[in-house]
Amino acid sequence: MEAETSAGKDILILNCGSSSLKYDVIRMPHRMSLGKGLVERIGEKMGKLTQTSDRGKYQVETPIANHKEAMNLVTRALTNPDSGILHSLDEIGGIGHRVVHGGDKYSQSVVIDDDVIAAVEKFSELAPLHNPPNLTGIRAAGELFPHLKQVAVFDTAFHQTMPPAAYLYAVPRELYEKFKIRRYGFHGTSHRYVSSRAVSLLKRSPENTNVISCHLGNGASVTAISHGQSIDTSMGFTPLEGVMMGTRCGDLDPAILLYLMERGYSAKDLNTMLNKKSGLLGLSGISNDLRDLETAAEQGNVHAQEALDVYAYRIRRYIGAYAANLVKVDALVFTGGIGQHGVKMRERICHRLENIGIFMDFNLNKSMGSQEGLVSEKYSPVSIAVIPTNEELQIAIDVYSLLFGETLEFRRRQSDVTL
Amino acid sequence: MEAETSAGKDILILNCGSSSLKYDVIRMPHRMSLGKGLVERIGEKMGKLTQTSDRGKYQVETPIANHKEAMNLVTRALTNPDSGILHSLDEIGGIGHRVVHGGDKYSQSVVIDDDVIAAVEKFSELAPLHNPPNLTGIRAAGELFPHLKQVAVFDTAFHQTMPPAAYLYAVPRELYEKFKIRRYGFHGTSHRYVSSRAVSLLKRSPENTNVISCHLGNGASVTAISHGQSIDTSMGFTPLEGVMMGTRCGDLDPAILLYLMERGYSAKDLNTMLNKKSGLLGLSGISNDLRDLETAAEQGNVHAQEALDVYAYRIRRYIGAYAANLVKVDALVFTGGIGQHGVKMRERICHRLENIGIFMDFNLNKSMGSQEGLVSEKYSPVSIAVIPTNEELQIAIDVYSLLFGETLEFRRRQSDVTL
Repeated sequence: MEAETSAGKDILILNCGSSSLKYDVIRMPHRMSLGKGLVERIGEKMGKLTQTSDRGKYQVETPIANHKEAMNLVTRALTNPDSGILHSLDEIGGIGHRVVHGGDKYSQSVVIDDDVIAAVEKFSELAPLHNPPNLTGIRAAGELFPHLKQVAVFDTAFHQTMPPAAYLYAVPRELYEKFKIRRYGFHGTSHRYVSSRAVSLLKRSPENTNVISCHLGNGASVTAISHGQSIDTSMGFTPLEGVMMGTRCGDLDPAILLYLMERGYSAKDLNTMLNKKSGLLGLSGISNDLRDLETAAEQGNVHAQEALDVYAYRIRRYIGAYAANLVKVDALVFTGGIGQHGVKMRERICHRLENIGIFMDFNLNKSMGSQEGLVSEKYSPVSIAVIPTNEELQIAIDVYSLLFGETLEFRRRQSDVTL
Repeated sequence: MEAETSAGKDILILNCGSSSLKYDVIRMPHRMSLGKGLVERIGEKMGKLTQTSDRGKYQVETPIANHKEAMNLVTRALTNPDSGILHSLDEIGGIGHRVVHGGDKYSQSVVIDDDVIAAVEKFSELAPLHNPPNLTGIRAAGELFPHLKQVAVFDTAFHQTMPPAAYLYAVPRELYEKFKIRRYGFHGTSHRYVSSRAVSLLKRSPENTNVISCHLGNGASVTAISHGQSIDTSMGFTPLEGVMMGTRCGDLDPAILLYLMERGYSAKDLNTMLNKKSGLLGLSGISNDLRDLETAAEQGNVHAQEALDVYAYRIRRYIGAYAANLVKVDALVFTGGIGQHGVKMRERICHRLENIGIFMDFNLNKSMGSQEGLVSEKYSPVSIAVIPTNEELQIAIDVYSLLFGETLEFRRRQSDVTL
């Protein structure tokens, strides 16, 4: 490990929520995860840090007043003599932040300066639950590591290549001009990562490859990618639109909200209902966990079966919509918890899509999940790939590329076999 | 004409709005329109009736207090000695009403009795602007023609064959159980008529034909039809959902409504905005009329061009979604004002959809509009047809079939050339 340290750079990846902080350390250009941790319940009576790495597990419970205290705790965990990830904080070569909303300003990752901070603050209007804690994390890390450069990697950036036909809503234009209401899309880092991996796996050049990627986790979105660029995605102005999710409704007749408000529902009621009580949970009345619903459906529960059917069908609609508009599709990619491990759900989604060239090998499909692999028939015009997402690695790649000038696109293609 | 009268039945078709009444007389089984009329401004200071037929034009302006008075006026216009459509009201063999909402109860047209009236009343909850005047028309016609049977032809009925995966929203199940919130779909009579005509035009059997029909008028919807049955449609719980329309927004991130309400918009503001000020009008800022936008776009107006692009792209999304899920598509049908006469819009919609087997003959496309015809290349796996819709004729067919027992399916296929 010593030899590698001297040859590489360790990148600290931070993902700050309102009361949590996730972190990872990845050695670049080796793409090697050195360890990761989670700080929970920041600002509550008792906080907790858990860190795991090859060197063991490290856990501490203590009140954690704010993100700066959390960052302090992280530095001590990272360098803990017994189970720490690093010998010294000096080994950190750069910091990457997951930032949710980059508005219409950022189409790629960027080194953070005052302008970027001001923009992230401005776009808090569009992501009030996410951008403010992201910013808190950027500031806390900046105070602790004043000598290090930080990079912002936006969830929205990948989708900034969408054409107006895909991102404009058919509403009065002043809503776009005044409130910036348009489709932004999310999960961009994941879609970018897995589509790029699919290109490698298929030994293709990105300039000549079209991909439909399905990120199906607790949140879920489908993206159409042409020649490495997102041209459409199912999430919209917010992550509520698009396919059905664990507890989110996805696409919905907007008049339903007006209908319910006439019947006494408040905007707040609707917000909670559509974000937290809908999706798989709402329609099944049982659970937001796919596995629970698969079990219930097997036992004959009709509502569970319907929830699974709606979930699959709504994804099929998007796959069809994008397949038609991409003109040709080379790969369909599944990632995220459900995308990687929902074997039956992948089967439901890919069943009888031969009109758009999708032929799944249902046997092969049963075995895939924790690692990359193809699950299509050999003769399928569209290759179907299961690819575990790794947003942290994509962030590390971006940080390394921006701070140390090495473009990793070529390397990415070279490293097919070894990754 | 005398000879035909004795052989056939004249069907009176009524379409009652809140302050209007449209009527048509169609001789069956000849499928011959004898004339039509419109009563406007019912309940206002001064009303107006206009009737046109082969025998001339008839017009009268007079205060019209309610739908019963309007119906009385219609009977006098129908039998006017100079330009009337009928010699005697006795020639009317049955009455057909366009009724918007049949809820989940009616999957086909039905002879009106007390049960039907109660159901139409009950479903007024779901169509408060349309079902009540439909009902008023049924009652007024019933008083004037107590000896005649009346038939209700529902806009929603054709879509009742959709499976739960297509009609369920991913919201808490109690919204379905308590409020009947689900996808209903509209324009059913038009989709049924044009898809059936397409089957005839292509000399196919409905049992082995899949159709995607695009009804593009002021309202607009796309329907997937498998073996004569609607399996999905773009309009939803209300006619607001789906593709972009003249002044309606179509699909929209539901969170946008919540976002705007936080910024002072009321539910009423949103209702007006999304129904009356969105769509082509809202996005272009110019007009809800396709022709105005085509002209403006040609003159370089970017907003007009974007509105046209969004309009086409959103339809392309639906066509792709349905093409994938129908497994095979035999015909793509265009109808409605824009579908029949929007030559460039049809071109925009069908451009580069070869991945789903759609190849338009762009020259042929230029000439089609007022009559039925194919606009696809001969080698196109999917035939593209332009078919003028005729909801009144479909209603007459239903009335005749229900009241006089003649199933017209076979006749419909026989009459390919003569219709």
